[in-house]
Amino acid sequence: MPQASAELTKKCVDTIRMLAADAVQQANSGHPGMPMGAADLAFVLWTRHLRFDPKEPRWLGRDRFILSAGHGSMLLYGLLHLSGYDLGLEDLKQFRQLHSRTPGHPEFRHTPGVEVTSGPLGQGFANGVGFALGQAMLSAQLGPGNPLEDHFVYAICGDGDLMEGVSAEAASFAGHHRLGRLVYLYDDNGITIDGKTDLTFTEDVTGRFEAYGWHVQSVDGRDHEGIDRALRAAKAELSRPSLIRVKTVIGFGAPKKAGTSGVHGAALGEEELAAAKKNLGWPEGPRFLVPDEVRAYWREVQEEKRMLRAAWDRKATAWRAANPAPAALLDAHVERKVPADLRAKLLEGADAADATRKLSQAAIQKAAALVPALVGGSADLAESNNTDIKGGGFVGAGSYQGRNVHYGIREHAMGAIANGLAYDGLHIPFSGTFLVFSDYMRPPVRLAALSRLQSIYVWTHDSIFLGEDGPTHQPIEQLTALRAIPGLHVVRPADGLETAAAWAHAIERREGPTALVLTRQKLPKLARASSDPEQLFRGGYVVTDAPGAKVTVIATGSEVGTTQAALALLAAKGVPARLVSMPCLACFEEQPASYRDAVVPPGHRVAVVEAARGLEWWKLAGKDGLVLGIDRFGASAPEKALAGEFGYTPEQVAAKLEAWARG
Amino acid sequence: MPQASAELTKKCVDTIRMLAADAVQQANSGHPGMPMGAADLAFVLWTRHLRFDPKEPRWLGRDRFILSAGHGSMLLYGLLHLSGYDLGLEDLKQFRQLHSRTPGHPEFRHTPGVEVTSGPLGQGFANGVGFALGQAMLSAQLGPGNPLEDHFVYAICGDGDLMEGVSAEAASFAGHHRLGRLVYLYDDNGITIDGKTDLTFTEDVTGRFEAYGWHVQSVDGRDHEGIDRALRAAKAELSRPSLIRVKTVIGFGAPKKAGTSGVHGAALGEEELAAAKKNLGWPEGPRFLVPDEVRAYWREVQEEKRMLRAAWDRKATAWRAANPAPAALLDAHVERKVPADLRAKLLEGADAADATRKLSQAAIQKAAALVPALVGGSADLAESNNTDIKGGGFVGAGSYQGRNVHYGIREHAMGAIANGLAYDGLHIPFSGTFLVFSDYMRPPVRLAALSRLQSIYVWTHDSIFLGEDGPTHQPIEQLTALRAIPGLHVVRPADGLETAAAWAHAIERREGPTALVLTRQKLPKLARASSDPEQLFRGGYVVTDAPGAKVTVIATGSEVGTTQAALALLAAKGVPARLVSMPCLACFEEQPASYRDAVVPPGHRVAVVEAARGLEWWKLAGKDGLVLGIDRFGASAPEKALAGEFGYTPEQVAAKLEAWARG
Repeated sequence: MPQASAELTKKCVDTIRMLAADAVQQANSGHPGMPMGAADLAFVLWTRHLRFDPKEPRWLGRDRFILSAGHGSMLLYGLLHLSGYDLGLEDLKQFRQLHSRTPGHPEFRHTPGVEVTSGPLGQGFANGVGFALGQAMLSAQLGPGNPLEDHFVYAICGDGDLMEGVSAEAASFAGHHRLGRLVYLYDDNGITIDGKTDLTFTEDVTGRFEAYGWHVQSVDGRDHEGIDRALRAAKAELSRPSLIRVKTVIGFGAPKKAGTSGVHGAALGEEELAAAKKNLGWPEGPRFLVPDEVRAYWREVQEEKRMLRAAWDRKATAWRAANPAPAALLDAHVERKVPADLRAKLLEGADAADATRKLSQAAIQKAAALVPALVGGSADLAESNNTDIKGGGFVGAGSYQGRNVHYGIREHAMGAIANGLAYDGLHIPFSGTFLVFSDYMRPPVRLAALSRLQSIYVWTHDSIFLGEDGPTHQPIEQLTALRAIPGLHVVRPADGLETAAAWAHAIERREGPTALVLTRQKLPKLARASSDPEQLFRGGYVVTDAPGAKVTVIATGSEVGTTQAALALLAAKGVPARLVSMPCLACFEEQPASYRDAVVPPGHRVAVVEAARGLEWWKLAGKDGLVLGIDRFGASAPEKALAGEFGYTPEQVAAKLEAWARG
Repeated sequence: MPQASAELTKKCVDTIRMLAADAVQQANSGHPGMPMGAADLAFVLWTRHLRFDPKEPRWLGRDRFILSAGHGSMLLYGLLHLSGYDLGLEDLKQFRQLHSRTPGHPEFRHTPGVEVTSGPLGQGFANGVGFALGQAMLSAQLGPGNPLEDHFVYAICGDGDLMEGVSAEAASFAGHHRLGRLVYLYDDNGITIDGKTDLTFTEDVTGRFEAYGWHVQSVDGRDHEGIDRALRAAKAELSRPSLIRVKTVIGFGAPKKAGTSGVHGAALGEEELAAAKKNLGWPEGPRFLVPDEVRAYWREVQEEKRMLRAAWDRKATAWRAANPAPAALLDAHVERKVPADLRAKLLEGADAADATRKLSQAAIQKAAALVPALVGGSADLAESNNTDIKGGGFVGAGSYQGRNVHYGIREHAMGAIANGLAYDGLHIPFSGTFLVFSDYMRPPVRLAALSRLQSIYVWTHDSIFLGEDGPTHQPIEQLTALRAIPGLHVVRPADGLETAAAWAHAIERREGPTALVLTRQKLPKLARASSDPEQLFRGGYVVTDAPGAKVTVIATGSEVGTTQAALALLAAKGVPARLVSMPCLACFEEQPASYRDAVVPPGHRVAVVEAARGLEWWKLAGKDGLVLGIDRFGASAPEKALAGEFGYTPEQVAAKLEAWARG
């Protein structure tokens, strides 16, 4: 770091504090306390340690920085502004205003330099584990000396992050895997919204992280040299992740409110803001002051960062020249390279009769051979989800060369770690569990959709037809709940071709998550009127038509085969019907109206068959339509018994459709 | 416990093992390994420690037993059968069959003696914390010497339970609160579905629980005296929860498969089952053998349990006689007593203009005064959710007399702990967080619905109109996702009267969870055509009608007021419309068709206005209808700016409705 007098250093840190306090005051909304308390530690980290290029926020050689305590967003925005990112004072002045680049919580893709969307607590913590995991995995593939191997993943976490279960899962995972390049600063300010943390949080956090296998230190939050020493020690400890517990004072500088929950989530107020400025020796006057000498200091910081980048670039260039094959692999990861004929390759020979989870397993093997960036894992259900990349190796503690991750029984962290892999953009992660347990990982799935991440979910055992495990394990409402998430593509394929197409779609979809919803039970091959593969990529298509049909029956997944059998019975009774398979409702809705009307003719009455809650289908079915769904929980019994109990034998479906069609 | 030779003891334990192995083999489905491995520790617990009355499974004086590792359900079913519950061998033979009383995972309300529905991992662990919390809270109210004060809460947990974040949150909560009557046995068998736990789970569990403030011991899983000593020591430690780490061998007795993941979740197979019987010296022959001497032994156990009950009953009777006021309070809890005029009392004076979260706060104060069993809490958002029972006191570490719980930033555990309170039936719990963070607690919400628990959720900040916190905090899809859960009543009131009615409904609804979805922002008082309070309890009703109306516009929550203003504009343009408020769609659907048709006339075209995803409204709207919902994520901005951006000013709503109505 550049030299600075104690006075200048103080001014630099107070600038961060006051930018935050001013912005929150201006918006009359936000969280001044965290930035004011954590300004010192962030300053030390950003000036002395963090490697970055403000002109190229996604520069590969950068260290990653995550503000897991995302409500302290003004801390991050202030740092981004001062360190030269494309974020001007005008942006800071628009804090929390419509269409500004400084929203209430940091948003990925929205503000340069923001690595992850944070705010929902614990998520950033786990995202960073994904960053470190991804780096370790790719670095192991590239071999020693590669330019990726020496970056660190830093995060600032708060009490809330550490109370959330997702961070506990992620910390256990990181400790097991010895992700030594994780360096987390715990902003221990002892205050949450409801008051002091000791109202409900008195555990020995230090001891807990030691039990996870982390390297743990404690320092005072105003002691720059102590923070620096701790960061150096953390970086030297490469076989364990590090937690540095930094004792801070929330709202430091505010004479009346510092150290209280009153400064957590509300503007200081004009009076207290003025008093804080006086207290810190800060000039009165207009808001958003950045003293010239502070600007000059940060210019020197930027110059140092430029030199760090230049050194990295030289090393990377030399490594590339000497290692053309690993360099090509690196590029394949950076570009998440996918062959142009992926669809054809995956569809080839995919038309088999089996459980879609098994058909998915076959697709995974092909895709993994074609797409180096594809990596997988499961929350202890690899054998059931059929997610293993065979021959791909398993990531273990200290050995990262595999393409399969044992996430353990930690669905929530799995989703958030996969998000980390996807944010970083060097991998296309897929992760598996039972569909019903998508409930355990909804927060990261939502964030994947909000941040438009390429994260793929392999959710098997997708209906009551998983059988004997019973209602705790049988999804009913999950399909509706997932389809409700804007931007998430939920794909429920009906056979081998649809499964292969679903995988191709998920891999080709660069900006947004895709969920593959797969059966435990074996399904038949569908008989299709058309063999055109394009139809498989339009969300819905006509499987078979019938002359004189005035009704269209839409089905998904395992119910397509059932409905095909039912429609054969129906045809024999003189009720011709069109069968539409609709594996992805969201994809279908993205089609032009002409296509949608060609598949589901406006003149037809419409029924939908899906062994799930079905609320989302009424838009297509309409008031004179029918949705054969399930509005209660399942039951523990063999698959065939459940089909009868819940009305999904072909005969039962045919009878209900006939009554409706004739009604 | 009754005396028994070593040989008889072994036979007793092997009976538990073999009932499980036989049942799983018969069903060809299930999890034999866990019961076979944990049979010893369960036998010691049930015969030497657990207090229960098989003839009255809900007897108040019983110890509570939770099989958190619910996949080992045959362990529980075998124990229930042997100890005299109404669960015959015929029931065991129907394991995992349709309509049997022995489903794949234990289900509350379904099988006598099953205290909680378990299977989704970590839930039972946290439910038990709720049991212990509820006992401590009520016992503190009743005073020393009360008959509730001496029961324990036992659970058997597996590796999966301890990997899940929800158990981490609950363990931290229990440690902080010093819930000393929790005695948890950790069945440490080192195996999960994917293989050995050391694939991904090598943390120091013992150290972690010590860091939470738990009392931790380790014992060998075959050492009955050691297990007994550990249980005694755990029970003697009343100021800390206890974890006893019991080293077991999964599938103990199966010669080839014991100690492997092969015995976790599949039948042993005929050959291995026969080999296991031979290995254990168990008779060949028909399945489901309970030797006579084992039956005789359990009869003696039952006699001992009867005597324990008789002693408790005597003490309870004496205490009741000496403490009539506390005894009445106890009864008010046991009956979850609610006054007959609750509705009238809550509605009285409730017609005010304010944010519904504030109106809810007023309702809570009244309800708490009328309903002793009502207890509340929030996940560190009490000031925002407005959930505090004022003057009700706060539960703290070692001091339990409050009616408010500081759950901390642990939404998932909060939901599961509240489930524990509700399963136990001595409290009516409500718990608060932001609506968007209902995602963090979906698994326990689902289980509350599945188990029909009276658990109330106070979810505030219910739309984009929370404003500046931005898209990470603004719910879009949550209403749809929650309404999709069978049996969950989601109530989104529009003003003070609807909020009071929502609270009355939630408190009067004994069997099933109710979610109150409340605004951050202030709402106007609605102008209603009818002042009949009954209409507020039918899910939906006509707020105002207009002569000649041919369209009905349905709205909920904050959009009712907006729509009322929009319809005034519309009326001025010659488009009369009926306004329907529909705070609870599920409740409305439970009304007779005649009522529903009276509210939403079949001849009307229907529009719905709700600032959310809206998929569930198309059933009412139909193809010629309109749903003014939101199909993207929100944005960080002040409330009024968002109204304009997302089209929810009265003028915008009126314009869209007019175009549609004239279209």
